[in-house]
Amino acid sequence: MLNSPCCTPQEQEKGSGGTGLMHPGVPCQEHIEASRPSLYPSVISNTSKEMSAFSDFPYPEDFPVFLPNARLLDYLRRYAERFGLQKHIKFGVSGGCPSTALLPTHAECWWGLCFASIFQTTVVSIRKCPDFATTGQWDVVTKVDGKKTSHVFDAVMVCSGNFSEPSLPLHCFPGIEKFQGQYFHSRQYKHPDTFQGKRVLVVGMGNSGADIAVEASRVAAKVTICTSQGAWVLSRVFDHGYPWDMVFNTRLMSLIRNSLPGPLSWGLINYKVNQRFKHENYGLQPEKSHLVREPVINDDLPSYILTGRITIKPSVKEFKDNSVVFYNCPEEEPIDIVIFCTGYNVSFPFLEEAVVKVENKHASLYKYVFPTHLQRPTLAILGLIKPFGAIMPVTEMQARWVTCVFKGLCQLPPQSVMEKEVNEKNKNRVQWFGLSFDEVLKTDCLVYMDKLASFIGAKPSVLGLLCRDPRLALTVFFGPCTPYQYRLRGPGRWEGARQAILTQWDRTLKPTRTRVPAGISSPFPPLLMVVGFLLLMAALLFCFQ
Amino acid sequence: MLNSPCCTPQEQEKGSGGTGLMHPGVPCQEHIEASRPSLYPSVISNTSKEMSAFSDFPYPEDFPVFLPNARLLDYLRRYAERFGLQKHIKFGVSGGCPSTALLPTHAECWWGLCFASIFQTTVVSIRKCPDFATTGQWDVVTKVDGKKTSHVFDAVMVCSGNFSEPSLPLHCFPGIEKFQGQYFHSRQYKHPDTFQGKRVLVVGMGNSGADIAVEASRVAAKVTICTSQGAWVLSRVFDHGYPWDMVFNTRLMSLIRNSLPGPLSWGLINYKVNQRFKHENYGLQPEKSHLVREPVINDDLPSYILTGRITIKPSVKEFKDNSVVFYNCPEEEPIDIVIFCTGYNVSFPFLEEAVVKVENKHASLYKYVFPTHLQRPTLAILGLIKPFGAIMPVTEMQARWVTCVFKGLCQLPPQSVMEKEVNEKNKNRVQWFGLSFDEVLKTDCLVYMDKLASFIGAKPSVLGLLCRDPRLALTVFFGPCTPYQYRLRGPGRWEGARQAILTQWDRTLKPTRTRVPAGISSPFPPLLMVVGFLLLMAALLFCFQ
Repeated sequence: MLNSPCCTPQEQEKGSGGTGLMHPGVPCQEHIEASRPSLYPSVISNTSKEMSAFSDFPYPEDFPVFLPNARLLDYLRRYAERFGLQKHIKFGVSGGCPSTALLPTHAECWWGLCFASIFQTTVVSIRKCPDFATTGQWDVVTKVDGKKTSHVFDAVMVCSGNFSEPSLPLHCFPGIEKFQGQYFHSRQYKHPDTFQGKRVLVVGMGNSGADIAVEASRVAAKVTICTSQGAWVLSRVFDHGYPWDMVFNTRLMSLIRNSLPGPLSWGLINYKVNQRFKHENYGLQPEKSHLVREPVINDDLPSYILTGRITIKPSVKEFKDNSVVFYNCPEEEPIDIVIFCTGYNVSFPFLEEAVVKVENKHASLYKYVFPTHLQRPTLAILGLIKPFGAIMPVTEMQARWVTCVFKGLCQLPPQSVMEKEVNEKNKNRVQWFGLSFDEVLKTDCLVYMDKLASFIGAKPSVLGLLCRDPRLALTVFFGPCTPYQYRLRGPGRWEGARQAILTQWDRTLKPTRTRVPAGISSPFPPLLMVVGFLLLMAALLFCFQ
Repeated sequence: MLNSPCCTPQEQEKGSGGTGLMHPGVPCQEHIEASRPSLYPSVISNTSKEMSAFSDFPYPEDFPVFLPNARLLDYLRRYAERFGLQKHIKFGVSGGCPSTALLPTHAECWWGLCFASIFQTTVVSIRKCPDFATTGQWDVVTKVDGKKTSHVFDAVMVCSGNFSEPSLPLHCFPGIEKFQGQYFHSRQYKHPDTFQGKRVLVVGMGNSGADIAVEASRVAAKVTICTSQGAWVLSRVFDHGYPWDMVFNTRLMSLIRNSLPGPLSWGLINYKVNQRFKHENYGLQPEKSHLVREPVINDDLPSYILTGRITIKPSVKEFKDNSVVFYNCPEEEPIDIVIFCTGYNVSFPFLEEAVVKVENKHASLYKYVFPTHLQRPTLAILGLIKPFGAIMPVTEMQARWVTCVFKGLCQLPPQSVMEKEVNEKNKNRVQWFGLSFDEVLKTDCLVYMDKLASFIGAKPSVLGLLCRDPRLALTVFFGPCTPYQYRLRGPGRWEGARQAILTQWDRTLKPTRTRVPAGISSPFPPLLMVVGFLLLMAALLFCFQ
């Protein structure tokens, strides 16, 4: 089957996308370890620091707005230190997947992410205890220095991430077995040196593909990206230079994109994503523009195309000895090196298929977290989601909800209700901003976060705030939906949340306003607050009518 | 005087700007030669190929929109070959300045730019012949292999460029003599390797400064740019991804910016340049925003600031042993390497001061070309201008005008008229888009080109065209003012000009529309032509009322 040309161009890059996104807790190392995520040293977070923070621990104000990976790791270490987490964690890698956090029995700590910087404990298997129906307990086998040990846990959070098992569908690329050049998966990529003077082909245009192509083009003789689907490419430097996610993920914007009729919403997004550059003129136009993957975040790609350093091509039709033929292109393109940026598979080798079954990169989980068919809700999968925004606050919210469920403070709906919802989601796909995604893992993170927050009573009430604290209400509604909003009330309420929200722009502007000419002070137009209040009134009327 | 702190912060970087702009005919070489321009290998043209073409020789359609330096040299070579120019040129470098073209006596060839790729002939001096008042002839002494020869020329075009003699005002930087680190002028820069792991300071924020900072930041430990004046930073990828100069330099835009009242024009440009990012929030805001230097063209800088790879600081107050103190910043910044991107001086060592006197980077030349006080107009300085656009079509137009003057087909005004105009320009400075520049070399290239074209009868008549060829008229008025417009009529009229104008967007889009999904064909909104016609009518009424 390896060489059969059974894939459509779409299938060739099905896995691409999202791999350039930072995954927390994985330091960038020069060596690549099996079954563990691998970063290239130049990776910079795709989401801004204010939107990527844990909800009760803002980033230091002098940290850059988008974080090079070492700074992000620094933040995670500060977080662990601040809350004294290290003593609760046995660092581990699972039998075939990385870094499953081991929660001590009766854990009071909700924190389910894992710092995988020291490897001591490997999770071999997680099986239901014989009396699972009554106790909900799990038998977890771990391995330290080759020695296996069995433990019983009341509950398990699986936090093994999406970026460990590369997807390399070589059978989708006819002729690859003849190809004389070098090829490898993006996971193997560390430095562009290997591309010096070479003709490079990048297959797939997710975040990694675009990043690697840009780096390669600085030393390569020629760089080509091939993509069947195309992609919307957004810049970190968004409208008027504000971080894209702080502009995009506001309650007002969410309300608009979830309220407008489809075509209007589509027209709006089409205008917005083409404002910086017309994707059509850069060869990037998504094939079905109303049915696209999540946008690629890349600041450099458009100018690299315009200056001829990167060329965009349709998907690969056939590999030859030393060249590639693309669909709809008569001429062969000579190629020396191919990097397959074809994404990752999802798998849980330490779990039985009866517990979590993965099909087409999708596991049937209630709210992307709980298996629907367990007698007791004592196992949760965290982070198996690709929000159009930062992953960390979303997994934190999942963890807060999960601990409430584990502790019995929250109930899950009956199995039939959960299954019905999961099936409907599978059928209808996720609607977002008038677009329907072709991968079910991607979802509007604001709506999703609000939903989980409402389960535990942490969803902020804009109307309620408007009476008690209008300034805060305006900032919550019009401003970026920073994670601190979910610490204003409910369990785990944080006294500092209000102040953190009101100073979110200060921390954002601090690292870049490093030269202030005389006579310039206010970072905001004074009119904004007045117009804002009027708009808020209109929006609330519209929302609650 | 070397160490006296006599300069204001503004004076520290007076020379910066423009040095990253491509200068034609200079191939990028690894070695740096005295008195000759020096490029770094990564230099890419700041102006698009359609706007940078010679007026009767469009770039090949598959060339990138903005040209890496090797492609630009390729174009120049093709041009020389197409018109059989090499046989008319003796390649040469002048005694202290590069590449002065030697025109044979009674030259019919207007072409005054020099390809300085082979060095055989050096210009030592250019002096008036004893009978200059009657003959206008020049005695030119050249040197080949140490042997001097004297020639008599009827006329001389000086095309020695602005990027040969670095301006390194060390006396403006107190404490530089104590500084233990390395420092050099941007002219010495070739590769970023030297910055590996270092803390780098870039002084001055012209095109070279921004380019070098971006490259350095990929390998350096830290990169800081210091600038007293700040700058507007524009991207090659402009509105909707069209090249900035093709959007900016249209007859409609020129009409608007030269017709609107100052404050309105200022508001418009302020909005436009801050649309991509608010310069204030990135530490780049020009100190006197209505009195700025020409914009810096850089695609990368904003995102490099936002991701913390580059920090912007005010100008240097003082150098210390291993650090720098900036104005208005209490803390010292540790620095290992300083690159002075402080621009270039203008000089003509082969000319007597009585012929051309340079003061404060400015020579008193009529239309930036002719010395005003010569009895006979047989010497012209070409390219001593920094247009806000491509240099090549401007120098070509200068050369066309100059040959007409040399041949007696055009007359210069009386000396008093020329001197009056030059003095007024010096006094009032150049007005451009509601801004007044603080360096007189910068000028609105469209207005300037039209002026010179009108001298030789090559200025296109939009009104005249509207009757004869409305489609062409619309394109000339609303479209980018490509150089082909100056070949529609007059001496040197080119039959291919009309077709070149009508296909200018095809050649622009060809190299980037390399992947066209099914169902997408037209690169232009169909409404444009209708709206365009109505707007043209209104604009013409407004213009000629």
